[in-house]
Amino acid sequence: MHTQLNERLNEYYQKMVDIRRYLHQHPELSFEEVHTPAYIRDFHEKLGLEVNENVGSRGVTAILHGSHPGPTIALRADFDALPIHDEKEVSYRSTIDGKMHACGHDGHTATLLVLAEQLHAMKDELHGSVKFIHQHAEEYAPGGAIEMIQDGCLEGVDAIFGTHLWATAPTGIIQTKSGPFMAASDRFEVTIQGQGGHGAMPHLTKDAVLIGSQLVVNLQSIISRMVDPQKSGVVSVGNFTAENTFNVIADQAYLLGTARSFDEETRTTIENAIQETAEHTCRMSGAEAKVSYVRGYPAVVNHEKETETAAAAAAKVPEVHAVEAREPVMGGEDFAHYLENIPGTFFFTGAQHPDWETTYPHHHPKFDIDEKAMLIAAKTLGQSVLDYMDDYR
Amino acid sequence: MHTQLNERLNEYYQKMVDIRRYLHQHPELSFEEVHTPAYIRDFHEKLGLEVNENVGSRGVTAILHGSHPGPTIALRADFDALPIHDEKEVSYRSTIDGKMHACGHDGHTATLLVLAEQLHAMKDELHGSVKFIHQHAEEYAPGGAIEMIQDGCLEGVDAIFGTHLWATAPTGIIQTKSGPFMAASDRFEVTIQGQGGHGAMPHLTKDAVLIGSQLVVNLQSIISRMVDPQKSGVVSVGNFTAENTFNVIADQAYLLGTARSFDEETRTTIENAIQETAEHTCRMSGAEAKVSYVRGYPAVVNHEKETETAAAAAAKVPEVHAVEAREPVMGGEDFAHYLENIPGTFFFTGAQHPDWETTYPHHHPKFDIDEKAMLIAAKTLGQSVLDYMDDYR
Amino acid sequence: MHTQLNERLNEYYQKMVDIRRYLHQHPELSFEEVHTPAYIRDFHEKLGLEVNENVGSRGVTAILHGSHPGPTIALRADFDALPIHDEKEVSYRSTIDGKMHACGHDGHTATLLVLAEQLHAMKDELHGSVKFIHQHAEEYAPGGAIEMIQDGCLEGVDAIFGTHLWATAPTGIIQTKSGPFMAASDRFEVTIQGQGGHGAMPHLTKDAVLIGSQLVVNLQSIISRMVDPQKSGVVSVGNFTAENTFNVIADQAYLLGTARSFDEETRTTIENAIQETAEHTCRMSGAEAKVSYVRGYPAVVNHEKETETAAAAAAKVPEVHAVEAREPVMGGEDFAHYLENIPGTFFFTGAQHPDWETTYPHHHPKFDIDEKAMLIAAKTLGQSVLDYMDDYR
Amino acid sequence: MHTQLNERLNEYYQKMVDIRRYLHQHPELSFEEVHTPAYIRDFHEKLGLEVNENVGSRGVTAILHGSHPGPTIALRADFDALPIHDEKEVSYRSTIDGKMHACGHDGHTATLLVLAEQLHAMKDELHGSVKFIHQHAEEYAPGGAIEMIQDGCLEGVDAIFGTHLWATAPTGIIQTKSGPFMAASDRFEVTIQGQGGHGAMPHLTKDAVLIGSQLVVNLQSIISRMVDPQKSGVVSVGNFTAENTFNVIADQAYLLGTARSFDEETRTTIENAIQETAEHTCRMSGAEAKVSYVRGYPAVVNHEKETETAAAAAAKVPEVHAVEAREPVMGGEDFAHYLENIPGTFFFTGAQHPDWETTYPHHHPKFDIDEKAMLIAAKTLGQSVLDYMDDYR
Repeated sequence: MHTQLNERLNEYYQKMVDIRRYLHQHPELSFEEVHTPAYIRDFHEKLGLEVNENVGSRGVTAILHGSHPGPTIALRADFDALPIHDEKEVSYRSTIDGKMHACGHDGHTATLLVLAEQLHAMKDELHGSVKFIHQHAEEYAPGGAIEMIQDGCLEGVDAIFGTHLWATAPTGIIQTKSGPFMAASDRFEVTIQGQGGHGAMPHLTKDAVLIGSQLVVNLQSIISRMVDPQKSGVVSVGNFTAENTFNVIADQAYLLGTARSFDEETRTTIENAIQETAEHTCRMSGAEAKVSYVRGYPAVVNHEKETETAAAAAAKVPEVHAVEAREPVMGGEDFAHYLENIPGTFFFTGAQHPDWETTYPHHHPKFDIDEKAMLIAAKTLGQSVLDYMDDYR
Repeated sequence: MHTQLNERLNEYYQKMVDIRRYLHQHPELSFEEVHTPAYIRDFHEKLGLEVNENVGSRGVTAILHGSHPGPTIALRADFDALPIHDEKEVSYRSTIDGKMHACGHDGHTATLLVLAEQLHAMKDELHGSVKFIHQHAEEYAPGGAIEMIQDGCLEGVDAIFGTHLWATAPTGIIQTKSGPFMAASDRFEVTIQGQGGHGAMPHLTKDAVLIGSQLVVNLQSIISRMVDPQKSGVVSVGNFTAENTFNVIADQAYLLGTARSFDEETRTTIENAIQETAEHTCRMSGAEAKVSYVRGYPAVVNHEKETETAAAAAAKVPEVHAVEAREPVMGGEDFAHYLENIPGTFFFTGAQHPDWETTYPHHHPKFDIDEKAMLIAAKTLGQSVLDYMDDYR
Repeated sequence: MHTQLNERLNEYYQKMVDIRRYLHQHPELSFEEVHTPAYIRDFHEKLGLEVNENVGSRGVTAILHGSHPGPTIALRADFDALPIHDEKEVSYRSTIDGKMHACGHDGHTATLLVLAEQLHAMKDELHGSVKFIHQHAEEYAPGGAIEMIQDGCLEGVDAIFGTHLWATAPTGIIQTKSGPFMAASDRFEVTIQGQGGHGAMPHLTKDAVLIGSQLVVNLQSIISRMVDPQKSGVVSVGNFTAENTFNVIADQAYLLGTARSFDEETRTTIENAIQETAEHTCRMSGAEAKVSYVRGYPAVVNHEKETETAAAAAAKVPEVHAVEAREPVMGGEDFAHYLENIPGTFFFTGAQHPDWETTYPHHHPKFDIDEKAMLIAAKTLGQSVLDYMDDYR
Repeated sequence: MHTQLNERLNEYYQKMVDIRRYLHQHPELSFEEVHTPAYIRDFHEKLGLEVNENVGSRGVTAILHGSHPGPTIALRADFDALPIHDEKEVSYRSTIDGKMHACGHDGHTATLLVLAEQLHAMKDELHGSVKFIHQHAEEYAPGGAIEMIQDGCLEGVDAIFGTHLWATAPTGIIQTKSGPFMAASDRFEVTIQGQGGHGAMPHLTKDAVLIGSQLVVNLQSIISRMVDPQKSGVVSVGNFTAENTFNVIADQAYLLGTARSFDEETRTTIENAIQETAEHTCRMSGAEAKVSYVRGYPAVVNHEKETETAAAAAAKVPEVHAVEAREPVMGGEDFAHYLENIPGTFFFTGAQHPDWETTYPHHHPKFDIDEKAMLIAAKTLGQSVLDYMDDYR
């Protein structure tokens, strides 16, 4: 049966490319998606699947019932684009100024649609159901996953699988890992309200540039002293702004940064420590700190059994050269929310063309993927579904 | 004779006001002055004085020879305006958008012109000469004084007197001080070249926000540890800019600040220490510092004898209520250069109208002076000249 | 056969206790061991094993050849004590003031001796050889392992197993982990040579207290910024000494600390960064840093196959309630050196008596072990040997 | 009359030397003086002056009434020694191990006793009274002055004069200054209570070495930002102690330092800022600060009229080459207390022998004074008394 699926996908690979290129030319930003979900809906309806649209506002789900009883397995693909101007010189370049599929979500969607079509063609042999979750707004916290879940998209689902086309790993590599896989990614802002004045009269001021600087230095101790050295954590201040002329002492300084972690304890430690450090650093000089800490996506923590299923499935895919156990990535993904609710796994599908001299990273204006990777992703996801159904019996 | 001068000045006070208001309506920026020096030249030529124009590019000097032999005493007034938009609602408001006499230099010039006219009228009684130095570009380092001196404006001059109309002291107050009176005011910039990267991967970066913050903190030790506690010094960073999004580690940070001091040793200590501190703070993280330290005007250090002369002269002026010994001001003035070459003194003439509820500080868009202060300034300068000549005999 | 070994060990448990208590009463410090190795030598000689003494100066090895051909497996026990004064109130308290077996090495030795005796009794059934490595000086870097290895103690050995009686885990628990298990533990000292002087005249000094403080603050950035957040690392300054009276500025400050890591890259990053940070922090103030970084034991990195062998063996021991996979420990062990040369594993044998209300940590003056844990250690090590031989065939 | 006093003092100079050397051989520490006050009492009683002993515990006062009415002028000399071991090779070396007149108080006392004797001899010509205040315990805060004043030693006194033999200025120089002359000298201690632990587990601790270091760094901002740059202030941490072995994180750190200032506002700013900085630096890490700030002697602020009297008197002394106006000294003196109660002045009498190649500073084990300076001090104080009486009439 697996051979059968692989052959079908090989045959329909060009369709996958066409869909991906069409979507690539018509990107839509997170929480602004209109045409993309309509396109997805139409595709699934044409297949005759049971479709739900406007799930959690803009998501689309479709369910394929196999002819035999069995578990329900969800496959998820996200479909939003980014506010980046496409600088690639290709025929399928974005047609919309300042918007671009610079993260591969177009490929995720094409992969999932064609896979749905081919699994549907094999429905008589399926022992269970497959739910296709097409998610909007992965790129922009709080993200689409959380509202799709609240809207019931995981009801009755036994396990979920997802992948990201990964342009920094060569095509033919699948990267999996049980446990922490992608980091919780939070965002914090600190506004320091000091008291401005003349550069020559510091004693009449509360120097916001100095206080902000003390804060950045003090924040280093969170990772070096407060977080368990066996746990991963990051606190980075990316932005420091206090714009004044040379002979003025700053009234205000604005800091903006990110915090990363893989477990709730570390995350809470960091959140509280930023608050405390900012407060006391400011109060030392009589200034005031306004801290805003916004939790982004939680960590993606893969479940062991489903990760093994996916890794084993990947190993069976002819185009896969290696299934690697990889270290966690400090980047974030709202796939994390699904895994907080049901078992599942998320893995990376290498998508770096072997002949490319330069690879542009995700979110780069010249980002592109090796489209062959979509075929590998489809086969690995499909194989995972089939193997999961087999194991279930 | 002094009485005679005071009476003459009283009589011509309105002329002083008219000149000041004309100049106020026609401000010209530092190093761009064309009409103002021409106006001054015409005024002195009409009196029949020996006039030099284009002195050190844009300055004007005029010399009045008394009928009797004696010393040559210089009086200096600056005549440039500022790039500030006049927001006052008065008949004599600036007619030029974005330019304004917001520091009183118009008043300085009017004072000196009318004083020249009246001293000229008394020339038969003068035992010595008076040189009127009308200086361009006081507001913008390196300033006009240094190039007027290079062009010879102090040749043959025995002593120099100057004053600033001072809007934060009430009219009727004269403030003098022997020794350090106004600070050396320098400007420094530090560009930190780190290495940018993803906020979640600090180990691949050299975090310019952290390095800049460490630098601001480290700079505090210059004043607390390296400068003699008995000397005055200030190091202030007014600007810290590293603008990035939250999940990026900064490639570069830009700091801009001011340093103040009253003596050469402290000034050099600060200059060297900023350089060393920046260099080693950066090298600690493998980053690079580009430091630019621009010396502004040196400290105004008044000479004792001339300061006593001016203080005594002020005490004789009927409108002067008090001659105060004041503490030094951390602000700067290029009058400093004259005092590095010949004896002299610089003092403040209170110019805050007794009835004003609000006083706008120098360089404020609503700045104004109590014009009566011009009369006091003229009398004090005139008296200083007469007394100096008397003492000389 | 395993049953047979366990029964034998049960029978000789009291002998194990007696040996341990005898050793406990006669502790000898690292690199000063004389009677302990003689005692061990005599024991093995009495059994008729082939014994080497003075191995790498003070170590003892004995080899037991089974009647059948097979692999050579080493078991290691360390036998040195600590310069701590025994404060326990027990019959077997240390008889030597200021010296004490406060880490359980007496138990390790007793375990290994009785295990040797019982394996020897079963020699006709052994398919392979067992080498007993009794190591001196584990407590004091550079430690005894490195010189025993240089002296050839691992020649012909196929695999090595070792354990530590672990007083903070309950008796009945075995803790194993493949890969990094115990940290590389280094020691660094920084002497800051500033320039002393009167507390009221900082500008004539180079303040070693301030420079040392800046250094401690700057060192925080090593972990927060320079070490990969996915790797574990610690830099702690435990000691800061600059003793002076209140109105003096310190000439010198002395810092002493530890660095921990699990991989060579992190270790090197930390070592270099401490050097660079100290140098530039000092040079910023014109002071000098003398840095000494002494690498202690490397990280204990367990080999996968042998770890599985030991874990499986432990699971067969009747008294073992649980075999736990544990997180790495930041503490160090010179067992690390054996594992850099041949395959093997090191594990923890819980030794905290279930009835104890208080457990004193290792190196505490009241430290003790639950002696039953020796029996468990002996059975687990013995089982590992037998299973390894089995697998080998 | 002045000539007469000078001649008398010249004649009795050798007696002054003898007394000084006797006292030098018999030093007594602050608040332990027994024989020295008895010696002083006996001397004055022998002259027939009205003597009070045990004034404010250990002080001695004597009053000389001139034959004519007039003001009462106090002259003060301190008489305590220091806990320093005398390392000079001279005949009059200290006979007591570990105690030494290393600050010249022996010379102050000898000066005053012989001056009293000679003024007494001239009593028929004196228009007023002279009160000799021999003060104990100047070296050790809270000092003897405050308790002598509380005990009434200034009652009825119109003005007070005092001097310090000053080994870093050449003999023949007198240094005076109206206004701030010597600094307020305070002492602060900070004990940081963190939470200790293993060097490899920082997240379970509150690292007192780091917190103490952050505090030292943060304290720099007090002088650089909070104190008016035109005012003098110093904050120095002389001692930092946290003694631990290398792999421990410190439970506690102890800091000890000094603060100097010349005016109450700066002093209060510093005191409050140390408190606030310590508190918030600690609270940032959840630690606690115990701060003790002990105000030592206030600033010595000389009164203008009496300073002029002393300067003029000095100028009349034949051996005085120059009367210098000097900058304030950051060191402290409890003469300050007298000046808070009545008018007066304190000045320095140069005591560095012109032929010495090396001068050992005050409090050095080889400290010595040029004894000729005592004669100059006696003449200057005597002249001040006579001139003050003259002016009074």
